[in-house]
Amino acid sequence: MNYKLIFKLIGNILRIEALFMFFPLIVSLIYDSGDQMAFLWSILILAVVGMILSKLNPKDKNFKTRDAFVVAGFSWISLSLFGALPFYFSGYFNSFVDCAFESISGFSTTGSSVLTNVEILPKGILFWRSFSHWIGGMGILVFMIAVMPSINASSVNLLRAESTGPSPDKIVPKIREAARIMYTIYFAMTVLLIILLKIAGLPIFDSLINAFSVAGTGGFSNLNASIGGYNNIAAETLMTIFMFLFGINFSLYFNLFDRKFTKITKDIELKIYFGVVAAAILIITINISGLYNGFWEALRHSSFQVSSIISTTGFATTDFNLWPTLSKSILIFLMFTGCCAGSTGGGIKLIRFILLFRAAKVELGKIFHPGSVKTVSVSEKKVSNDIVSKTALYFFIYFAISFVSLLLISFENKDIVSSATAVIASLSNIGPGLGAVGPTGNYATFSSFSKVVLSFCMIAGRLEFFPILVLFTPNVWKRQLIK
Amino acid sequence: MNYKLIFKLIGNILRIEALFMFFPLIVSLIYDSGDQMAFLWSILILAVVGMILSKLNPKDKNFKTRDAFVVAGFSWISLSLFGALPFYFSGYFNSFVDCAFESISGFSTTGSSVLTNVEILPKGILFWRSFSHWIGGMGILVFMIAVMPSINASSVNLLRAESTGPSPDKIVPKIREAARIMYTIYFAMTVLLIILLKIAGLPIFDSLINAFSVAGTGGFSNLNASIGGYNNIAAETLMTIFMFLFGINFSLYFNLFDRKFTKITKDIELKIYFGVVAAAILIITINISGLYNGFWEALRHSSFQVSSIISTTGFATTDFNLWPTLSKSILIFLMFTGCCAGSTGGGIKLIRFILLFRAAKVELGKIFHPGSVKTVSVSEKKVSNDIVSKTALYFFIYFAISFVSLLLISFENKDIVSSATAVIASLSNIGPGLGAVGPTGNYATFSSFSKVVLSFCMIAGRLEFFPILVLFTPNVWKRQLIK
Repeated sequence: MNYKLIFKLIGNILRIEALFMFFPLIVSLIYDSGDQMAFLWSILILAVVGMILSKLNPKDKNFKTRDAFVVAGFSWISLSLFGALPFYFSGYFNSFVDCAFESISGFSTTGSSVLTNVEILPKGILFWRSFSHWIGGMGILVFMIAVMPSINASSVNLLRAESTGPSPDKIVPKIREAARIMYTIYFAMTVLLIILLKIAGLPIFDSLINAFSVAGTGGFSNLNASIGGYNNIAAETLMTIFMFLFGINFSLYFNLFDRKFTKITKDIELKIYFGVVAAAILIITINISGLYNGFWEALRHSSFQVSSIISTTGFATTDFNLWPTLSKSILIFLMFTGCCAGSTGGGIKLIRFILLFRAAKVELGKIFHPGSVKTVSVSEKKVSNDIVSKTALYFFIYFAISFVSLLLISFENKDIVSSATAVIASLSNIGPGLGAVGPTGNYATFSSFSKVVLSFCMIAGRLEFFPILVLFTPNVWKRQLIK
Repeated sequence: MNYKLIFKLIGNILRIEALFMFFPLIVSLIYDSGDQMAFLWSILILAVVGMILSKLNPKDKNFKTRDAFVVAGFSWISLSLFGALPFYFSGYFNSFVDCAFESISGFSTTGSSVLTNVEILPKGILFWRSFSHWIGGMGILVFMIAVMPSINASSVNLLRAESTGPSPDKIVPKIREAARIMYTIYFAMTVLLIILLKIAGLPIFDSLINAFSVAGTGGFSNLNASIGGYNNIAAETLMTIFMFLFGINFSLYFNLFDRKFTKITKDIELKIYFGVVAAAILIITINISGLYNGFWEALRHSSFQVSSIISTTGFATTDFNLWPTLSKSILIFLMFTGCCAGSTGGGIKLIRFILLFRAAKVELGKIFHPGSVKTVSVSEKKVSNDIVSKTALYFFIYFAISFVSLLLISFENKDIVSSATAVIASLSNIGPGLGAVGPTGNYATFSSFSKVVLSFCMIAGRLEFFPILVLFTPNVWKRQLIK
């Protein structure tokens, strides 16, 4: 392993994080919310550690695939642990494990909280929680590639290690340009949402942090009742639409601006995404209509919740724990699938389901035509057998980690539904599950051990397993591999 | 499709089923239990239909792979539906759907019942329920191959379509000999268990039907309280051991008699099976010890239940619904894994988990050595990429069918745990799940629609999906394919 290069990059990431932390510091100064010192100390520590690490001078500046995975794993862990510092210094949390859980939940865009009352938090801390969703949504490595000229072309592996979905399209030949375009679209959509939420009547502070949470598909809110607390139909509708939009593959937005419309209309994942969302909203609306004042209110809650869960945001306007089993089963289904690859959302991703569904069909066809060399294709592109089996393995790893995590947090002796959905909601980066971790619940009652297990799930889910799993292989820790 | 050949074979199967039905008829006559006519009518119908179909004279007598799959699918459906006739004629069931559910549950070795009180059933019917487990356990096609000289060598595909696990070893060069050896071992082990249960103090009738249920890893009992109703520690211990033994790959027993001991000691699936069972028993025993009178009683229930669930039998000696979450999570985990390939048990099978776990490890290794051509190997044998991706797809199909079935039975509005475990318990051919379908519950309260969905799961699970899924492909129904 090229440890010097890895640590140097982590140093850069920490420096960027220090800069990002100036935003909550400014918020804290404006509102004089009393958490200024928490940010000042954190920035100081980040700057010092970041400077020291980034002074390292590796001989070889090229990334190998393995280096990229290890960098992605380590840098997300560092980002989250250092990002927990303001929480720790603020004094509102019980332990560093709680701070780390909240920070990992933030950066991984999960939005699970260990706090029972978020409304007493100072504005700076509230801002930082939601801002971490925004940073984590598009990715810190993508940001680094976009702004740092020192990162060279082989960094495509870095981008790949952090992006969601089976294999991101190379949308532009130059990797830095791609990263910049992605962030520009992301930034523009976020600003648009901030303005619209302000127009809809939310205070400017609330517009900002809710837009961050929506853009990163996170789910931290500054109200204990989540978005339901506003009782603002316009804001809810805006968020329903934008949660859905942030669940779409960003390369399609790029195609939109590039006027490559056929690429968009041919995209099978997008079609399925629309279809699944429409079907889920329809069935749930009918299923829950008895619980609300008529069709329209049922539609309002059902569309908000479907958009929130499939995009893996996790906001709530109502307690869906009380919904009938059919609606809850649909939500659980959406917790697994998640939205589109290349979006800021989590979950297994629809494209993986499409791909495996087609592969199963091809496999069935082989029974009739044994010699057939028919291959799987998606959006009119052939998919190699290698990608099919990797995708199927991804599916297996998702469930293997779910099972092991469920067993580990079962020591809590919470009911099965709460335990199982806590794991899925963490692994798919959603936030709320059902039962004790439902929209009116939180993760405060879990033991530190369970919080560590769920933190692992959140970060492993966000990085789609491999960058975290490689850290557990002996290869990373063997001395002879150090150059 | 070679329909003439397919129907001819189904005719043979029905004739065999008619013969099998003489056993419950004899039981019914001995005990004068009042269900004699139900069996006489059923035998008559089976014989007539069977005779007519088996008179067909196909030109081509060779099976193609596709024919074998279609035969397997159709013949299991016919077997189950005709096997439901005695239930229907007996008058103890509410509808034909209920009879079909009970029959499919029997042949698929699931053991879920729609009856709330089995103790009022006549002895012939009770015998037939458990005997269907025994027939379904090793397989009706395997039996046909063993006894009918007209089936030629290409019938290896038939054997393959019905056996459990990724790809059965060819244990002997001649397929008929293999089928005979399998059934001989199966028969011998069953007889041994019958004798032992009799010695342990069970009545002869109870020894017989419990031995059938254990051998087929089914789970139908003649007591409402299942095996717990006997309160006979010797019988429980015998069943604990034999359920475990019937969960082992039968080709290993063949190796045992053949003195090929290294084949057994090298078998990784067997090692993992022992390991998983031992670990599960240990953890559950400690976890539940507070609920029972000390360590030994806890061990007794925990070992019985682990053996019952992992072998997918589904017998119960206690209400494990009341166990702590950790123990229930372990049981759910075992419901998914099931036991060994080539056994009479259901579930995904341990070998598939071992294989995918290794494949994931190889995939991780590729990050460090991108050019590596390292392949997956199991029990010192290389596994082709084709089998790895098929296995991973199998895993996907299992979960895809689970999700869809869960959504379909969610219309019942039973709680999530009952609904989800009802699906898994059907798909893995276990029988009881948790909640309303737990060991003290049953499937009587489900609607006919849900019973059809769960019946599909049971039969699809027993045949490991492909023979049932092919029946839904247009290929089977295209006229131009008829030769």
